[in-house]
Amino acid sequence: MIPALTMKGGSQWRTPVYVGAGILADPALWDLVFPVGGRVALVTDDNVVAHYGDRLGSGLANRSINQSVVPAGEASKSRQQKVGIEDHWIDSGIGRDGYCVALGGGVVGDLAGFCAATYLRGIPVVQVPTSLVAMVDSSIGGKTGIDIPSGKNLIGAFHPPRAIIVDVDVLSTLPDDELRNGLAEVVKHGAIADASLLDFVADNLPAIFARDTDILTELVTRNISIKANVVEQDEKEGGLRQILNFGHTVAHALELLANYDLAHGAAVAIGMVAECRMAETVRGLPADASQRLSSLLEQIGLPTRCDLGFPVDAVLNASQTDKKVRQGQVRYALINRLGGLDPDPQFGFAVPVPDDAARAALELILQNP
Amino acid sequence: MIPALTMKGGSQWRTPVYVGAGILADPALWDLVFPVGGRVALVTDDNVVAHYGDRLGSGLANRSINQSVVPAGEASKSRQQKVGIEDHWIDSGIGRDGYCVALGGGVVGDLAGFCAATYLRGIPVVQVPTSLVAMVDSSIGGKTGIDIPSGKNLIGAFHPPRAIIVDVDVLSTLPDDELRNGLAEVVKHGAIADASLLDFVADNLPAIFARDTDILTELVTRNISIKANVVEQDEKEGGLRQILNFGHTVAHALELLANYDLAHGAAVAIGMVAECRMAETVRGLPADASQRLSSLLEQIGLPTRCDLGFPVDAVLNASQTDKKVRQGQVRYALINRLGGLDPDPQFGFAVPVPDDAARAALELILQNP
Repeated sequence: MIPALTMKGGSQWRTPVYVGAGILADPALWDLVFPVGGRVALVTDDNVVAHYGDRLGSGLANRSINQSVVPAGEASKSRQQKVGIEDHWIDSGIGRDGYCVALGGGVVGDLAGFCAATYLRGIPVVQVPTSLVAMVDSSIGGKTGIDIPSGKNLIGAFHPPRAIIVDVDVLSTLPDDELRNGLAEVVKHGAIADASLLDFVADNLPAIFARDTDILTELVTRNISIKANVVEQDEKEGGLRQILNFGHTVAHALELLANYDLAHGAAVAIGMVAECRMAETVRGLPADASQRLSSLLEQIGLPTRCDLGFPVDAVLNASQTDKKVRQGQVRYALINRLGGLDPDPQFGFAVPVPDDAARAALELILQNP
Repeated sequence: MIPALTMKGGSQWRTPVYVGAGILADPALWDLVFPVGGRVALVTDDNVVAHYGDRLGSGLANRSINQSVVPAGEASKSRQQKVGIEDHWIDSGIGRDGYCVALGGGVVGDLAGFCAATYLRGIPVVQVPTSLVAMVDSSIGGKTGIDIPSGKNLIGAFHPPRAIIVDVDVLSTLPDDELRNGLAEVVKHGAIADASLLDFVADNLPAIFARDTDILTELVTRNISIKANVVEQDEKEGGLRQILNFGHTVAHALELLANYDLAHGAAVAIGMVAECRMAETVRGLPADASQRLSSLLEQIGLPTRCDLGFPVDAVLNASQTDKKVRQGQVRYALINRLGGLDPDPQFGFAVPVPDDAARAALELILQNP
């Protein structure tokens, strides 16, 4: 099987990305990914394993599999789960020739990837994302990590996977709301790098929700290409990669205020609307571009307003905890056109926004309908 | 100030190594190492900070320093200490522009380096080793990690330091036994890569124990060069780097049996004697080379026999837990001549040893005097 694409990080790493329907259960693909010797350290969650454990088992036939199952949900991205997995691997004799396979959504991918990054100072991981957001976003780029009580993703490592296997068949059991979560990141990719992707989504929404595997394969492949392109050019997030935070500074603030009881996709959708308004003021984004983005989000069924009653000041304060803050000043990843990767001449892709412009944008998304 | 040498890991990283007397307190050197902005996250132990905290404070004058002090001793290389340091950094607002400074021996260097490796997915670390073994060995090469109940260094990361600052003045307070510990690794370096280093040590032992800073500067610089050369050629321990385990397979087995109540340097000294005997059988090491090594170890005051009453079988079994075991077969890093980096044609630098040869070598070091 030929990879849909191969990501490269300089001379340091290369990650083939396989995309297709039913490929999870294909032993020939797994033989390409890692040698028959060595043991598989599978990490998954209790929800995913019930649906897809058997298919993966077919793909990994004749290999020795050691399985760690964590509870589904963000709470599993914890120090405690990492310790449990590590100790289980040690007790099971997983050695340096072991391979981690992360079968699940973003939580499993981040947790398992981070365990692999630090186990015996690093063993390979194969990412097998099972949610749309993991397929198009979190499994791509090598970021791994866990949450701690003070915040999300604060402890982690860059650990590029040995391979990424995206089987779009598994989206058949993904709830529609989770599909929408992933589509928020898809819209973000279109906004920052490929306006025609926005048309593709708008034109194919019924097929996407019907889980048409051809359309999903194209959708996923296009999105991975966009993210891979950005990541390859800027692995360590110094410059270009910042644009991937479009919509996310406001989104993170809203999630923080909501105690994370707000879907990430919903937060990103609302955040993109707010940051489009900022971009109109600061970077000359045309108003009809903002409008087109909002309309698509509504068409998908994503929110463009936050009705949780947060005051503007609270959102501004919460933004201050973002990792992109420099010398106390929040920076926003803003676009100047749909599909544009054009840095601001002075600030690049992380731009300060005057207080009144930030307030006006937040008033837009926080207003009662 | 000019680095004594600069280590390079392909195009990925470069680490300047500064060696001298009194350089710890030199603000001009610290200005070379990292910019004045950003905060210093200092990690040290309660023993070292009492001796050298003030000198480092002079070097870091006008910088904001956040300090984490762990108890001196191997027990601090723990998950619990890592959590404590991370939470302290978060609570203190250490951001991505923060710098970790590891002031201490191997324990502090490994622990602080690993904390830095995973904090916000990685912040830079400057290693300031204060023991001879840390100066010539553990601070060089980017290995970081912690111990877990099942074993030492099982969780960790490769995190090459931003710089290494070796101030030989600090050896003045290092106990003689700790100096001997470091000299065991020095002898190892001579044995694997530079026989003339063995003469240098033999000729300058009184000056070394008198803490002559010129001699110590030369000693440390030569050793760092050897290790750096090996590491640069083989960062990920695939081949050449294995030779750094000379003496260590037996040493680790003895340490395990002794519940780590055996100095690492002593274990390495005894381990080198045993593995020299294996090398005579398996790799044709001349007997007079073994003799020369043993004599030097005795001259230094390091043991060449283990009188703890361990049976040969126990040591053989304990060797099985070594990370170098492949398909159940222990491999030893053996030399074929003093100062030689010549791989075995079939096995490279990690060579299996027939049971009778391994037993004969262990009987030599385990016999009652």
